[in-house]
Amino acid sequence: MPALGSEIERLIQLLAKLPGLGPRSARRAALALLKKRDTLLEPLAGAMQDAAAAITACEICGNLDTRSPCAICTDVRRDSHVLCVVEDVADLWALERAGVFRGRYHVLGGALSALDGVTPEKLHVAALVERVRHGVDEVILAMNATVEGQTTAHYLMDLLTGVKVTRLAHGVPVGGELDYLDEGTLSAAFKARRPL
Amino acid sequence: MPALGSEIERLIQLLAKLPGLGPRSARRAALALLKKRDTLLEPLAGAMQDAAAAITACEICGNLDTRSPCAICTDVRRDSHVLCVVEDVADLWALERAGVFRGRYHVLGGALSALDGVTPEKLHVAALVERVRHGVDEVILAMNATVEGQTTAHYLMDLLTGVKVTRLAHGVPVGGELDYLDEGTLSAAFKARRPL
Repeated sequence: MPALGSEIERLIQLLAKLPGLGPRSARRAALALLKKRDTLLEPLAGAMQDAAAAITACEICGNLDTRSPCAICTDVRRDSHVLCVVEDVADLWALERAGVFRGRYHVLGGALSALDGVTPEKLHVAALVERVRHGVDEVILAMNATVEGQTTAHYLMDLLTGVKVTRLAHGVPVGGELDYLDEGTLSAAFKARRPL
Repeated sequence: MPALGSEIERLIQLLAKLPGLGPRSARRAALALLKKRDTLLEPLAGAMQDAAAAITACEICGNLDTRSPCAICTDVRRDSHVLCVVEDVADLWALERAGVFRGRYHVLGGALSALDGVTPEKLHVAALVERVRHGVDEVILAMNATVEGQTTAHYLMDLLTGVKVTRLAHGVPVGGELDYLDEGTLSAAFKARRPL
């Protein structure tokens, strides 16, 4: 394609590696960037370099922050006796957005998967066991409701002895229509029904 | 949201301005960038700065390239007597990918729109008229098949006198199923039917 300079080609190729952007949308994104050089391209390039320089993984919980230990692990107002275990930083962000949890987190870095060769050694499991030994009263397993997530939850449940272990409730999502829900969710919602 | 550092917040906000990325996918993209610092975040930041420094709009046709006049305008193997007028650089890229055209381009920078206040003065119309005066035999109007695009095409058709003016054919897209096509396209395809 002779019309595109190598700088544009390279920009498109790298943008296409972002989740949610395919080759076509990467081209559109590259063009939008080149058209908005002052308001988008240069600020975004700067923000990326700032992030690359500043952001690090928390040595305690695995959260991404400008410091380690992270803002959550060092926040004395948060309850250090309750630990919420998540697969990914994205899950931690989602729970923080919901604002329902005021304890500390532990990011596993994935879920067990025999198919993908993800063994407990490849996740931050040993560090979790070590943390639970020191003054933790409850561990909330907030894994995804997938086969891998639930396998991981069961594995951790067996591993974490001498501490209260809970998991998130299954049920109808708020705003969800029954018609669109799978049988597993409906079955779980029925079994866990509560008096009004 | 106390869990995210301001660097991450800013990165997400800027990513969300890219076409095709909403707030949710911008978060996913930011996380993917932070997890792949060496293979994605830093190379992409670099590619953006390279592009910001190197890419400029061609003074003749409006294409984006590392030099002005651009590679297409300076390519002597391309026919300078045929001019293909497009709304946007993205359309030029699409035609180059198709590899059907070996002449030169003219990027208008948009389409006429009374609603959005886009008048001929806001597009590169005067420069087009000037180019057509000097040794152009045919002008191909490759506007989008939208109301704005077709309004622009008709406006240019009236303006460009003394030169052959053509437009792209309307019809059934290759691979398209009749069942999914709108009445306008079917009607155009019928009217322009050709002997087998």
